Amino acid sequence: MTDTISNASSDLSPIQTVSVDLGDRSYGIEIGRGLLETAGERIAALRPGARLAVITDETVEKLHLKTLQASLAKAGIDHAVMTIPAGESSKRFSQFERLCDEVLGARLERNDAIVALGGGVVGDLSGFVAAAVRRGMDFIQIPTTLLSQVDSSVGGKTGINSRHGKNLIGAFHQPVLVLADTGILDTLPMRDFRAGYAEVAKYGLLGDEPFFAWLEANWKAVFAGGPERDEAVARSCQSKADVVVADERESGRRALLNLGHTFGHALESAVEYETARLVHGEGVSIGMMLAHEFSERLGLIDGAVVARVEKHLSEVGLPIRMSQIPGQLPPAGTLMDIIAQDKKVSRGNLTFILTRGIGSAFVEKGVEPAVVHDFLVEKLSS
Amino acid sequence: MTDTISNASSDLSPIQTVSVDLGDRSYGIEIGRGLLETAGERIAALRPGARLAVITDETVEKLHLKTLQASLAKAGIDHAVMTIPAGESSKRFSQFERLCDEVLGARLERNDAIVALGGGVVGDLSGFVAAAVRRGMDFIQIPTTLLSQVDSSVGGKTGINSRHGKNLIGAFHQPVLVLADTGILDTLPMRDFRAGYAEVAKYGLLGDEPFFAWLEANWKAVFAGGPERDEAVARSCQSKADVVVADERESGRRALLNLGHTFGHALESAVEYETARLVHGEGVSIGMMLAHEFSERLGLIDGAVVARVEKHLSEVGLPIRMSQIPGQLPPAGTLMDIIAQDKKVSRGNLTFILTRGIGSAFVEKGVEPAVVHDFLVEKLSS
Ligand SMILES: NC(=O)c1ccc[n+]([C@@H]2O[C@H](COP(=O)([O-])OP(=O)(O)OC[C@H]3O[C@@H](n4cnc5c(N)ncnc54)[C@H](O)[C@@H]3O)[C@@H](O)[C@H]2O)c1
Ligand SMILES: NC(=O)c1ccc[n+]([C@@H]2O[C@H](COP(=O)([O-])OP(=O)(O)OC[C@H]3O[C@@H](n4cnc5c(N)ncnc54)[C@H](O)[C@@H]3O)[C@@H](O)[C@H]2O)c1
Ligand SMILES: [Zn+2]
Ligand SMILES: [Zn+2]
Repeated sequence: MTDTISNASSDLSPIQTVSVDLGDRSYGIEIGRGLLETAGERIAALRPGARLAVITDETVEKLHLKTLQASLAKAGIDHAVMTIPAGESSKRFSQFERLCDEVLGARLERNDAIVALGGGVVGDLSGFVAAAVRRGMDFIQIPTTLLSQVDSSVGGKTGINSRHGKNLIGAFHQPVLVLADTGILDTLPMRDFRAGYAEVAKYGLLGDEPFFAWLEANWKAVFAGGPERDEAVARSCQSKADVVVADERESGRRALLNLGHTFGHALESAVEYETARLVHGEGVSIGMMLAHEFSERLGLIDGAVVARVEKHLSEVGLPIRMSQIPGQLPPAGTLMDIIAQDKKVSRGNLTFILTRGIGSAFVEKGVEPAVVHDFLVEKLSS
Repeated sequence: MTDTISNASSDLSPIQTVSVDLGDRSYGIEIGRGLLETAGERIAALRPGARLAVITDETVEKLHLKTLQASLAKAGIDHAVMTIPAGESSKRFSQFERLCDEVLGARLERNDAIVALGGGVVGDLSGFVAAAVRRGMDFIQIPTTLLSQVDSSVGGKTGINSRHGKNLIGAFHQPVLVLADTGILDTLPMRDFRAGYAEVAKYGLLGDEPFFAWLEANWKAVFAGGPERDEAVARSCQSKADVVVADERESGRRALLNLGHTFGHALESAVEYETARLVHGEGVSIGMMLAHEFSERLGLIDGAVVARVEKHLSEVGLPIRMSQIPGQLPPAGTLMDIIAQDKKVSRGNLTFILTRGIGSAFVEKGVEPAVVHDFLVEKLSS
């Protein structure tokens, strides 16, 4: 349910609320421009008297922490701030340990809350800290990247990386509140905004043709920051929330969210997560193209569908072909090895998210590795 | 429900099963002498094809690992072994990190399982590892101390210590199976057995007068290792399971399990967790005495009840008075400060578990600190 309520302060856009219905762990995602300025009163209304540990990264701290602190001060909320270096490498044990210790050192108790102000890195790490300290503290997400607003802040997955792979240590821990200030995204570098947009487009492609058509018509305003951006974030959150509610612990339907991700992860791994060459959303964009082309190869869709996807992803500036990744890629055999090691693959056959048309993705468990291999050989040389 | 099923192997005692009914996270606690020899077949029946990471400590490894490994080999279960140093100081971040990495390095997947073979230290640490790796793996407890069989292996609390206090970082993560081999306790040093017995007596004192009376009559056989030991473990597990099922996340009834623990923890902290002076169960024994004496002081029970508790705890060899702790104790004011910092205390008034008679403990939230202080002053000088 997306309902529109008006906001007290006049220069703020209307606030939309997406509710995630998980019984006694239900929570709301509030979406709107300027929301950060009202964070204090919203948190005070939800958790009167709670003290906060605000976790952020060095980049976001410089840009947006002051606004949050002013709002907390206005609402009389006592809080401590903990800052981590920006970037994926902060999702590690040493930061987890340090933050757990600092939260306890700040004398936060079980009724207090941890606030993540940042992108998916800050959210994933802080969420795991919130899950672990005193075996579970309240957790509030204030996502500041498009990716974290439409994806990582919804669904309760938290965690850190191990040297054996990404996101392998963590917890399912739902937030009690998500505040997505779409105005915060104005400071995001264009490349990060675009990468997040790949996940927005994904929601249309996997299950919502009208939303994809709406994006085709309105993507410029989404990028520019009009009310269409709020709409795109809200519809994306709603899509993810629907899947999460149906399937909280990821067995069936939740797998659809991996559209484009099997190929995408393989490419990220192939470039050794060198973000100068490829960031996650770019891998997802190329991966979604490959998933559509592979579906065409299997006779599930025709070329017109592939062309429509390609047109939209490329017009927003996302890469659509492996050849757009700077530098050399490994051969198909190596990509296949990476895919086979992927946790989403069960022994023998491969599981892929394929599609029968825009908005009609499905989980296919019996994909033969040889067919994928041949497909990749051809795509790598095109 | 405690029902008795016969065991295939003739030299094993009958196996009792206590079931913990938590919906789709329900599990059984099996109790009996010689159970370790049948661990392989029991695990294979529950989780066919699963691989295991067996976590144990150096002391238990020497005494009991071979028996477990022989049983796993017989059942054809592939497993890796990870050993930690014995003792409370293994419940720390560095061991948590190391074990998470090793479990992943052993290529355990989400359907595989982690087995804790050891006391509460191994169980608490391994359980948190199981909760965190891949955001939750199956967890099997094979508790090898009396305390872990009757207390820490039941209820799903897992975790490690922080420098800010014990058990402050962790997760609620229920096991899928608990195997309590009461014969394993034969190798336990008497002091550890007695300390665990304090928790057994606690179940009688907090809510089960007939069980306490049964212990008064049968404690020698419980110590000696007859079928009465199995019975005591089973009734204790049943008591804890009942409370856990009623109140999984510890808000109301579960607090009764802290009978004797507010005073006991304060004493443990006062001796800086120096186990040469006081181990947890000894603190609980003295704490339970204090809780009864304090209840008498408040006019809730008469002296005959206190005398009955004192007689039983002292006849099994547990300490019953603070003066029995070797060395100097801090003054009452310091103990009060420790109690006020305790996480079970909310600002202003103190929460204590008091009693209206044997088996009739209750939670009292409005205890005035000054009254406790005067009581402690007097007890410290007696
Ligand atoms: N938990 C989940 O379900 C889930 C889902 C998808 C992705 N993820 C995780 O999310 C992470 C990626 O998230 P991300 O893309 O947000 O990365 P990120 O948190 O590293 O943010 C990207 C960069 O943008 C900067 N930044 C953040 N907000 C900004 C703003 N408003 N203005 C300017 N700069 C800003 C950050 O400092 C960082 O340098 C990965 O670790 C991934 O594993 C988690
Ligand atoms: N999770 C919970 O709900 C819960 C409840 C109560 C206590 N605990 C925790 O449990 C821990 C204490 O448990 P514990 O008393 O079992 O301590 P422990 O695990 O340290 O075991 C005590 C000692 O006995 C040794 N030992 C274990 N089994 C043996 C055997 N069969 N024969 C000979 N030696 C053996 C161990 O190596 C150790 O040296 C504490 O960390 C406490 O916080 C947890
Ligand atoms: Zn993604
Ligand atoms: Zn105890």
